[in-house]
Amino acid sequence: MLEITSVQNPLVKEIVKLHQKKYRDEFIIVEGKKALEGAKEANLKIKYVFSCDSELLSDYKNCAYLVNEKVMEKISTTESAPNIMGVVKKPEYPLKNFRNYKKIILLDSIKDSGNLGTIIRTAAAFNIDGIMLFGDCTDEFSPKTIRSAAGNIFKTPIVHAPFSELKEFKKTHKMITTVVNSKNSAASFKAESPVIIMFGSEAQGLCKELLTLSDISYTIPMKEGVESLNLAVSAGIILYEMYKNEG
Amino acid sequence: MLEITSVQNPLVKEIVKLHQKKYRDEFIIVEGKKALEGAKEANLKIKYVFSCDSELLSDYKNCAYLVNEKVMEKISTTESAPNIMGVVKKPEYPLKNFRNYKKIILLDSIKDSGNLGTIIRTAAAFNIDGIMLFGDCTDEFSPKTIRSAAGNIFKTPIVHAPFSELKEFKKTHKMITTVVNSKNSAASFKAESPVIIMFGSEAQGLCKELLTLSDISYTIPMKEGVESLNLAVSAGIILYEMYKNEG
Repeated sequence: MLEITSVQNPLVKEIVKLHQKKYRDEFIIVEGKKALEGAKEANLKIKYVFSCDSELLSDYKNCAYLVNEKVMEKISTTESAPNIMGVVKKPEYPLKNFRNYKKIILLDSIKDSGNLGTIIRTAAAFNIDGIMLFGDCTDEFSPKTIRSAAGNIFKTPIVHAPFSELKEFKKTHKMITTVVNSKNSAASFKAESPVIIMFGSEAQGLCKELLTLSDISYTIPMKEGVESLNLAVSAGIILYEMYKNEG
Repeated sequence: MLEITSVQNPLVKEIVKLHQKKYRDEFIIVEGKKALEGAKEANLKIKYVFSCDSELLSDYKNCAYLVNEKVMEKISTTESAPNIMGVVKKPEYPLKNFRNYKKIILLDSIKDSGNLGTIIRTAAAFNIDGIMLFGDCTDEFSPKTIRSAAGNIFKTPIVHAPFSELKEFKKTHKMITTVVNSKNSAASFKAESPVIIMFGSEAQGLCKELLTLSDISYTIPMKEGVESLNLAVSAGIILYEMYKNEG
C-alpha cells in the first residue's frame, strides 16, 4: 500500500484540482464509504482511494493510498474530512438507452446541488429509470451533489438532453408537468405509458420551450397563500404517488 | 431616512454579531423581501431594515437605513447580499397553545438548517398547526433556516418541547412515527384525532425515549436496497398524505 505524508505531494495537487468543475471532464471525486461502494457496484473505474485507516483501504488493493489527516483534509471538499474517499471515472450514459425507459424525470436549469442530489436519491427510492438534465444545470457529479445523493449517485443514469432530442421522445413518451393550478390532482397520477416528468426550477418554473411539449399537468394540493414547495419535496411527492399507484 | 456609509459604523458591528447564534437571544436577522414581509404579517417588532434601494425601504419608515453595497455585503450572511434585510424580535410561542393544535410535527435532534427550513416551509403548505423541536437541534431562526423556509418562517409556531411535557401531550394526541418496516403504509395515513408526527434525524432515527411514546407507525413504500429518503422529502410525503386525506 502506498503512502502519502506530505500535502506537497503532486498527487495531492492533482486531487485538489478536481474540486473545480473544469477539471472534472474525465474523473470525479467520490467521498464516503457508501458513495465509493456505489461506484464499485456500478463498475466504474476506480483510479485512487485515500484513507487514514488502512483497514478501510483493504477492499481497494491496487489504487489505495494511506494518508495522514492533513492530507485527507486537504484533498476532501468538506469541513470535516470523510473516512474514505476516491477518484473514479465519470460515468457516461447514452441518451439512446433512455428510449426504452418507462419512467424518466427531467430537471430544467436546476442550480442547487443539494436539491439535485436529493432528487437523485429520491429517484433511486422510487424506481425511476433515468434522469434528464436540460438547460444550464449545476454539475451532477459535484462533491455536494454526490453527498446529497447519500450513496445513490450511480444508481440512476443521468444525461443532458437537448431540445431536438426531447421532441423525438414526445413520440414515445407522455410529457408531464407540475403546475400550481391544474385541475388534475397529483393524487390521481399514474404512469400507464412511458412518461417524462418535467420539473422547472423554483425561481423560474419550466421554460417556455419545454412547456410546449407538455401533454398533461398535475397540481399538488396545498394550502392557499403558500407559494410553493421546495423542488426536491415536490419531486418527492410526485415520484411517491407514481410509485405507490404502480403496485 | 438614516444612512450608513461605513462598515466601521457601530450599528454594522451590532448586526454582524447576530450572525452568531449566541447573540440571537432577543433579535434575529431576516434576509429578503418575503421573509421581512412575513415578520410584518406576524406582527413581530422590526428593529432595523437595511437596503441599498430607498424605494424598497419606503414600507419601513422609522427603522429604515439606506446603506451602500459594502455595508450590505458586510451585514448579510450570504455570498450575494439580498436586496433588503432586517433585524426583528425573535418570536416566542407558548407551549400551552399547542394543546389545542390538531396537527403537530416533532423533529428530534435535527442538525441540518436547510432541512429544517424546508420542513418549516412544507408545514405551512400542508396546514400544520405547530412544530416541536426535541433534543439538540440546529437554530430554528438561523439565517440559513430562514432562507430555506422561503418566506414561511413565521407562519407556524415553533417550540422546544421537553420530554416531561410530551408525556402529557400523549393523553390528548396520538403519537405517530415513520419507520422503514411498518405494515401500515403512509398512503393510509389520516389524522382523525389530534396528532403529533415525530421525525428522527437521518443518521440516528428517533431516540429511544420518543419511541416509547409512539402509538402507531407508518412506512413510506419504496424500492428495496435504498436505505432512506432525505428527511425533508419523507416529511413532505407524510404531510402531503395527511393534507390530501383531510378532504
